[in-house]
Amino acid sequence: MLPSLPVLDWGRRYDRATLFSDLVAALIVTIMLIPQSLAYALLAGLPPEVGLYASVAPLLLYALFGSSRVLAVGPVAVVSLMTAAAIGEHAVAGTPAYWAVAITLAFLSGAMLLLMGLLRLGFLANFLSHPVISGFISASGLLIAASQLKTLMGVKAEGHNVIELVHALILQAPNPHWLTLGVGVLATAFLFWVRKGLKPLLIKLGLNTRLADALAKAGPVAAIVVTAVLAWALDWKGQGMKIVGTVPQGLPPLTLPLWDLALWQTLAVPALLISVVGFVESVSVGQTLAAKRRQRIEPDQELVALGASNLSAAFTGGFPVTGGFARSVVNFDAGAQTPAAGVYTAVGIMLASLFLTPALYYLPQATLAATIIVAVLSLVDLGILKRTWAYSRTDFLAVLSTLLMTLAQGVEVGLVVGVAVSLALFLYRTSRPHMAEVGLVPGTEHFRNVLRHQVSTSAKVVGLRVDESLYFANARALEDWVNDVVAERPQARHIVLQCSAVNDIDASALESLEAIDRRLRDAGMAFHLSEVKGPVMDRLKGTHFLQALSGRVFLSHYQAIHELAPEIEPST
Amino acid sequence: MLPSLPVLDWGRRYDRATLFSDLVAALIVTIMLIPQSLAYALLAGLPPEVGLYASVAPLLLYALFGSSRVLAVGPVAVVSLMTAAAIGEHAVAGTPAYWAVAITLAFLSGAMLLLMGLLRLGFLANFLSHPVISGFISASGLLIAASQLKTLMGVKAEGHNVIELVHALILQAPNPHWLTLGVGVLATAFLFWVRKGLKPLLIKLGLNTRLADALAKAGPVAAIVVTAVLAWALDWKGQGMKIVGTVPQGLPPLTLPLWDLALWQTLAVPALLISVVGFVESVSVGQTLAAKRRQRIEPDQELVALGASNLSAAFTGGFPVTGGFARSVVNFDAGAQTPAAGVYTAVGIMLASLFLTPALYYLPQATLAATIIVAVLSLVDLGILKRTWAYSRTDFLAVLSTLLMTLAQGVEVGLVVGVAVSLALFLYRTSRPHMAEVGLVPGTEHFRNVLRHQVSTSAKVVGLRVDESLYFANARALEDWVNDVVAERPQARHIVLQCSAVNDIDASALESLEAIDRRLRDAGMAFHLSEVKGPVMDRLKGTHFLQALSGRVFLSHYQAIHELAPEIEPST
Repeated sequence: MLPSLPVLDWGRRYDRATLFSDLVAALIVTIMLIPQSLAYALLAGLPPEVGLYASVAPLLLYALFGSSRVLAVGPVAVVSLMTAAAIGEHAVAGTPAYWAVAITLAFLSGAMLLLMGLLRLGFLANFLSHPVISGFISASGLLIAASQLKTLMGVKAEGHNVIELVHALILQAPNPHWLTLGVGVLATAFLFWVRKGLKPLLIKLGLNTRLADALAKAGPVAAIVVTAVLAWALDWKGQGMKIVGTVPQGLPPLTLPLWDLALWQTLAVPALLISVVGFVESVSVGQTLAAKRRQRIEPDQELVALGASNLSAAFTGGFPVTGGFARSVVNFDAGAQTPAAGVYTAVGIMLASLFLTPALYYLPQATLAATIIVAVLSLVDLGILKRTWAYSRTDFLAVLSTLLMTLAQGVEVGLVVGVAVSLALFLYRTSRPHMAEVGLVPGTEHFRNVLRHQVSTSAKVVGLRVDESLYFANARALEDWVNDVVAERPQARHIVLQCSAVNDIDASALESLEAIDRRLRDAGMAFHLSEVKGPVMDRLKGTHFLQALSGRVFLSHYQAIHELAPEIEPST
Repeated sequence: MLPSLPVLDWGRRYDRATLFSDLVAALIVTIMLIPQSLAYALLAGLPPEVGLYASVAPLLLYALFGSSRVLAVGPVAVVSLMTAAAIGEHAVAGTPAYWAVAITLAFLSGAMLLLMGLLRLGFLANFLSHPVISGFISASGLLIAASQLKTLMGVKAEGHNVIELVHALILQAPNPHWLTLGVGVLATAFLFWVRKGLKPLLIKLGLNTRLADALAKAGPVAAIVVTAVLAWALDWKGQGMKIVGTVPQGLPPLTLPLWDLALWQTLAVPALLISVVGFVESVSVGQTLAAKRRQRIEPDQELVALGASNLSAAFTGGFPVTGGFARSVVNFDAGAQTPAAGVYTAVGIMLASLFLTPALYYLPQATLAATIIVAVLSLVDLGILKRTWAYSRTDFLAVLSTLLMTLAQGVEVGLVVGVAVSLALFLYRTSRPHMAEVGLVPGTEHFRNVLRHQVSTSAKVVGLRVDESLYFANARALEDWVNDVVAERPQARHIVLQCSAVNDIDASALESLEAIDRRLRDAGMAFHLSEVKGPVMDRLKGTHFLQALSGRVFLSHYQAIHELAPEIEPST
């Protein structure tokens, strides 16, 4: 596939009204993105300016290739956490070596995304089930919040899973840096109040909804400005509080990934996981927003666009990025019409990195930690446990195992285990299909489960139904079941298998059907099929099975019973 | 589950006629088992007497616990090959250390089988598809035959895959031990002739079929006696031919597995693979033979019985065993009625190991290699490639990858890759379900694919059908497809999804349906379902989805179209 350039489509019809809408949206997103990009860079273990670098070139590339009109690309919480987990084994956070590995990770992730897009492998992301994603995102949110507590307390505590983090925090708990803790707790409380209480209050005070919304969005900026000013005025740095410090002024630098094959090999799995998680997050928000305007996005095109974005991040000193949920929703709500809004946002971030960084010098790190905690706790949805428990035990198991493994073993193990568990549960379920003996509902031509309904049956002719496609994992279950049925019914002479729910029969299942037929024939019985679907019948034609079949293939189950066991005909 | 003792059932009704049948069958199986047990022990890299030891206690234990009346347990070719591959990394073939590891492997495999039986995990074997088993058995047959060529040529050549073996053999090819090669080739040709040509000839000469059959079965014994006598008379040992040599006289020794946790860990995967392959081979032959007499076997009980057999092998100097295909068929054909035939066979092997072993001293190893080659080549069925290609490309891919990987990388990698490929192909297939837009067949109440049939449709009401259960891997495909359909049909106001082929809807698919509903509602449309199956409907009831659904759930698709788009009603 050649990637297309959606920009050629929307660019041609770009007018002044669209420009205005896009500019307004870009302004709001930029205000939101500045603190987030700094905070997520710190979360990933990188200097804060790297977050700004990762919010320029990737946005431009996405605007060129992306098929979503409103997706806001840049650093996001979960991918930043996964980045920290992936690099932590290779370098010490904050060092230039660490940054170089982050750049390499963005490069590998970008290359993988691009390749997957060109090979149209977007469908692979479908194997991340909703329960796994929910469990993973919630656990990641808790992990991130826990990891920020150390910054909030002004202590050192490292760990890539909840056990390590909590253990380290408990050791440090008696000796926090009280000033930092106070500022952090107040900032967190303020941000929670802005999120929940400010908007209703402003509306109550007479502001219109839109303005109230925009002011509530600016809450983090207010917290940053106020705490930075206080830190400068009251010399919090001199009292031992950690501040952001010198953030280099200037445009994103040109950088190269490390050409180290051994490093690439060890980063391959984390890079793949980051790519898949980033892609899934991006596509699901993109799809939801596109559908609201009856537009659509192309998953394989999105892979190409995210691949290009990450490659550009690698060459401009950034780290892995993707389409973020919260910022995209804000972009959409603010009225963005085209990806040009992303270009204007990139310009805004460029201006910020050129002129705004000195103002960040006194910003307490605890304030950034507070913005992260408030942002990620909205990702945590433990209600999913209750909801899936009510709906399906297997889905519940998938959520629970992903959640617990992510908390206990970190993001990579958690994600892999979650996928493996959900696939295993699906295979287990299809390997034990629902099977029923069926009988005729008197006065009709319908057949129903003999255990659930009052139906007529015959000792000579046994009707069976299987509610699943037949494939290797359930073929033997069918064999066993037919064996059981036959062993229990010495008078049976005909077995009729109703195939109305069988969408496919693979080679193993075909051999099982042949084995069933052979055994029934050896025991002096005949094996029939009824209601075989067209595509299945097409494939069975020309096989030895149909030629050798001891019985017949009936169009309807009623017809089969009608011919083989006329005595159970209902007297209508 | 408590394992049952089938012996209590058949033992109670044991009479003189059954005794006679069992004794005749046991005699024939014993004659067949003596050379096979020696040969398979050598194949596994063990001294020949270990094959005899593995053919005593396991048979007694199987007679006690087994649910098949005719399964003949003991050393078999494929499991012996897998044993050699598993132990080869830990010890040098022929040494006491190697034997100790073999005993430990039998212990681990026995413990795993027993545990799987008690936990009722027999269903796990269902994940070995027929294509994978066929490819694996054929490749193993070729591997075994290739491995025996060195003995046939009288040279040394080691390797666990075909590439290594063929390379080693080519290096040795110019310098075979000519006498050994001559005897080996003649013995192989003789055994092939016995298998194919002798029985028809004897029948032609006037013998009855049964006697001709029995004489043909004794072919390997004849080859052994003749070559052993010639080797003694012509002093082949003095001319450098490898002979079996001293086989200790006496009953199986009492032995213990090695209690070495590190060893257990490295043997765990091979032991599991051996257990599963042995179980699958055993159960499939057991099921086929049981069905011929309208009996049945219990897979979980078979796990217990094979587990007990392997544990007993570990405590009596044996190595991993299972139910063999060829010997079980012979046992059945010879008229065995109960597992007591296995007890008599065990007695026969005990007598052989007490009194017959000195006579084996001069037996050329090349003769045993010839019996193995002839036996395993009957396992090779490359026609499966052609048959699966004709039936289904995915099944063909599963056979081919298992076959090639087993040949190129050995039994363990081959089996694991085969299972992984077949599962991946199944998941891939179900992740891309067949989906169709449907229209009304004029003059009927039936709906068919608009691409295949002449049907009436409505611009306002779109009918869609999906031919697969909805689960996480295909839920997004459905979302994408509905998005596409809606984007193409600006006039559409109602989407009706016909669910007649949907046997299950998991939590991910439910979220996708909710997303579809939400998006359609946002776009001013309504989403309806039709023909939802009872069990699926049971589960949907009580979910938020049905309460929030923008449309309705119709009992039949016809009813939905009838109400929503009365204008396309056919004029009957």
